[in-house]
Amino acid sequence: MKIAILGTGVVGQTLSEKLVALGHEIYMGTRNVEETHAKDKPDMFGRPPVSEWIHHIKQVNLVTFAEAAKNGYMIINATSGQGALEALTLAGKENIHGKVVMDISNPLDYSKGMPPTLSVCNTDSLGEQIQKAFPDVKVVKTLNTMSAYIMVNPALIPGDHNVFMSGNDAEAKAKVKELLKTFGWKEENITDIGDITTCKGTEMLLPIWVRLMGTFQSPMFNFKIVRQVT
Amino acid sequence: MKIAILGTGVVGQTLSEKLVALGHEIYMGTRNVEETHAKDKPDMFGRPPVSEWIHHIKQVNLVTFAEAAKNGYMIINATSGQGALEALTLAGKENIHGKVVMDISNPLDYSKGMPPTLSVCNTDSLGEQIQKAFPDVKVVKTLNTMSAYIMVNPALIPGDHNVFMSGNDAEAKAKVKELLKTFGWKEENITDIGDITTCKGTEMLLPIWVRLMGTFQSPMFNFKIVRQVT
Repeated sequence: MKIAILGTGVVGQTLSEKLVALGHEIYMGTRNVEETHAKDKPDMFGRPPVSEWIHHIKQVNLVTFAEAAKNGYMIINATSGQGALEALTLAGKENIHGKVVMDISNPLDYSKGMPPTLSVCNTDSLGEQIQKAFPDVKVVKTLNTMSAYIMVNPALIPGDHNVFMSGNDAEAKAKVKELLKTFGWKEENITDIGDITTCKGTEMLLPIWVRLMGTFQSPMFNFKIVRQVT
Repeated sequence: MKIAILGTGVVGQTLSEKLVALGHEIYMGTRNVEETHAKDKPDMFGRPPVSEWIHHIKQVNLVTFAEAAKNGYMIINATSGQGALEALTLAGKENIHGKVVMDISNPLDYSKGMPPTLSVCNTDSLGEQIQKAFPDVKVVKTLNTMSAYIMVNPALIPGDHNVFMSGNDAEAKAKVKELLKTFGWKEENITDIGDITTCKGTEMLLPIWVRLMGTFQSPMFNFKIVRQVT
């Protein structure tokens, strides 16, 4: 399947690698292709620059946001949360029209220092803002409550643990669920919590996620919902 | 031990019952003792009125907030989140001075309808507001991420799952941890996430908690943090 990934950071790269391994063709969208190719320094996580990474992964086409969205059967928003609306605007309404937009970003605001706050929460969310700005796309918020490495390889964490899903369109959620299953997620651990308004809840998990990462000095953990046996 | 519980709702009652069973003497604080005794209707959860409940549990003394705080070696804030600061003010600085205040409330705001929003979040929290308003008490935020029934009986949920703890005072946290252990919490499942500022994270868990309760049609679940085995 041709999949558009908006964003070239560690999340976009990790998703791309997994999707390529699963046989998909990736259109990775960036603001300015030339500038992205010209980057020659490791990112803040010490990963090689995108220009070097892309050189080794032929099934990823580095293109503009618009070109990516046009080619993608499904669009994955892997930009920083604060760049999401602009990236989708640059992608072009005509290119995203009617498509499933899997939003895995979080509205993290690092401008006031660490730990980050959320640029939107409580009475609104980034997922809802995207759905409102682009009413004819099918936004499915998911995977935003864990490290990118766990998103695409849940078996890195022992036993059962959960991924949440929010969205207004049942068919779009079913498509996303199928994709998540190919990543290794068990059906019973994919928890549909309701329409897109419910992603306030998953985005607001980020503050404890950030604190737990500090406590454990590692992002390699996830949330599991344990229920009473009835 | 003499323990003050501020608040007469389902959370205060559930905590009281457990603490009495463990041999403690409870001073349950309310705004107006006469009015509380005069209540003769079941609460919103269908539980009998406090006046009837208190009749059957002799080790609970229904007194004013001030009287409760004065008698308690430790103070548990089990008011609604929005009533917390007022209850502690009525308790009196001289009566809470230097004591451990275990805050198990959440700043839930039902005034805009369901689901509730938070009256404070993101850049501040109720736990921090309490600590700031009463700088010489030792606030420990804990237990606020689950149903009252699970707070006092973690075995209701199968296997391991977590309770979080935030606070500035190590000794106060150690005391609270000992109390939690008598409720049945295993030491390894009591996760100290840091100083009182970290309770932004646990209070911001409430929106997903509320949505999950809707999805499961039951409050009988809890969060477990699952980590990579290293």
